[in-house]
Amino acid sequence: MLITSLENQKVKDLVRLQQKKYRDLTGTYLVEGEHLVEEAYQNHVLLEVFVLEGVTVSFDGNVTEVKEEVMKKISSLESPPSMVGVCRKQESHEIFGNHILLLDGIQDPGNLGTMIRSSLAFDVSTIVLSPDCVDVYNPKVLRGTQGMIFAIPIVSMPLEKAISSLREKGIPIYGTSVEEGVDVSTLDTTEKEKYALVMGNEGRGISSEVFALCDKNLYISMNSKVESLNVGVACSILLYELGR
Amino acid sequence: MLITSLENQKVKDLVRLQQKKYRDLTGTYLVEGEHLVEEAYQNHVLLEVFVLEGVTVSFDGNVTEVKEEVMKKISSLESPPSMVGVCRKQESHEIFGNHILLLDGIQDPGNLGTMIRSSLAFDVSTIVLSPDCVDVYNPKVLRGTQGMIFAIPIVSMPLEKAISSLREKGIPIYGTSVEEGVDVSTLDTTEKEKYALVMGNEGRGISSEVFALCDKNLYISMNSKVESLNVGVACSILLYELGR
Repeated sequence: MLITSLENQKVKDLVRLQQKKYRDLTGTYLVEGEHLVEEAYQNHVLLEVFVLEGVTVSFDGNVTEVKEEVMKKISSLESPPSMVGVCRKQESHEIFGNHILLLDGIQDPGNLGTMIRSSLAFDVSTIVLSPDCVDVYNPKVLRGTQGMIFAIPIVSMPLEKAISSLREKGIPIYGTSVEEGVDVSTLDTTEKEKYALVMGNEGRGISSEVFALCDKNLYISMNSKVESLNVGVACSILLYELGR
Repeated sequence: MLITSLENQKVKDLVRLQQKKYRDLTGTYLVEGEHLVEEAYQNHVLLEVFVLEGVTVSFDGNVTEVKEEVMKKISSLESPPSMVGVCRKQESHEIFGNHILLLDGIQDPGNLGTMIRSSLAFDVSTIVLSPDCVDVYNPKVLRGTQGMIFAIPIVSMPLEKAISSLREKGIPIYGTSVEEGVDVSTLDTTEKEKYALVMGNEGRGISSEVFALCDKNLYISMNSKVESLNVGVACSILLYELGR
């Protein structure tokens, strides 16, 4: 089948998936580009694929060809990709494992994507997002993760609730602070066996309510001329150190 | 003085600074927002400031008030900042120090901004950009640096040339490769005393010409499910390790 018209109902439905409201409503989201579509397929969340006229895909499934102007309309990218996929949301509700990343109000899609990618690199078992974080199914977040989103459980819940359940499991809660605390490179192995690391919003840092619940604050030793690192970078260095 | 008209010649000149061509032509560039303007002032590169009508600045200098719609036109930001500053480019031509970061064709402004910010945090002495890197005076790069751009010498030159002069000074050249090389955490202090770290383009990595000139390749130990980290993150972790 080939879709040629921008007025096609399917096209309209796909365009709506650029908005969080419709992603929530349908329980689906879009991934753009061959790499992400392939990753979605490998991870069994791909429902259907739309490809540019003449493009072939290497896997079975529900594939529809579309004209270039249709792809342009569906995609959030400036230069339309060769394919987009519709995926089924796969939401986790349980915090699994002993290496937890808690994100408090992260707003920038690029930062969230980076942190998800680094989380998998450094063996985080579950990521918990506070409800005011940017939507994880935002196209820019998905691009930033490079497909790693499919490989790690992501839970959305108030961090106070997450922390109280982590505390019951004996997992220490590490806040992050530029000004005071413990140099992350001085932690010993027993302090890194289990951890829940909290990273705060780009502007205001960790909210005071959550900050008060942290057992310890970690910092990264650096030149005092620099006020802070990019939050995605700071998170990645901390996870790198905690993973050693 | 208050500028009210979008047709004002000064306004037209400022708008042109959004393009690299005019930044190169005039030897000037724009910084947006109070924080960057303040940093530019502290670092003696600020030539003049344009503020929203009624906004006051805490330093002496050439300040002009503009109407909100004028600010909107001048600024690259979606919500116009309270002020923008015109700065004088301060280009370095010499590679200074023993801790060098060489960037080979970095394209994403956010990544370049992040790497400049992390460079200062981890005591890089000079950053060398290959001529095909994104312009360092691009507004998104400047925002990403959080003002750190004023505090570190940045040189633009072919990396082959830079490497040959670094080699004469006895500075080892470290490439980066995901697949093979030396785990950065295993380097000893003598191997970190002097270094020139090369980071490659987001898509293709380090160009083969430059790669061939590296003495050693470094990698970051991580979960094998992850193909690579974001280049800004990888660079920051490597600089963090090299700085210890």
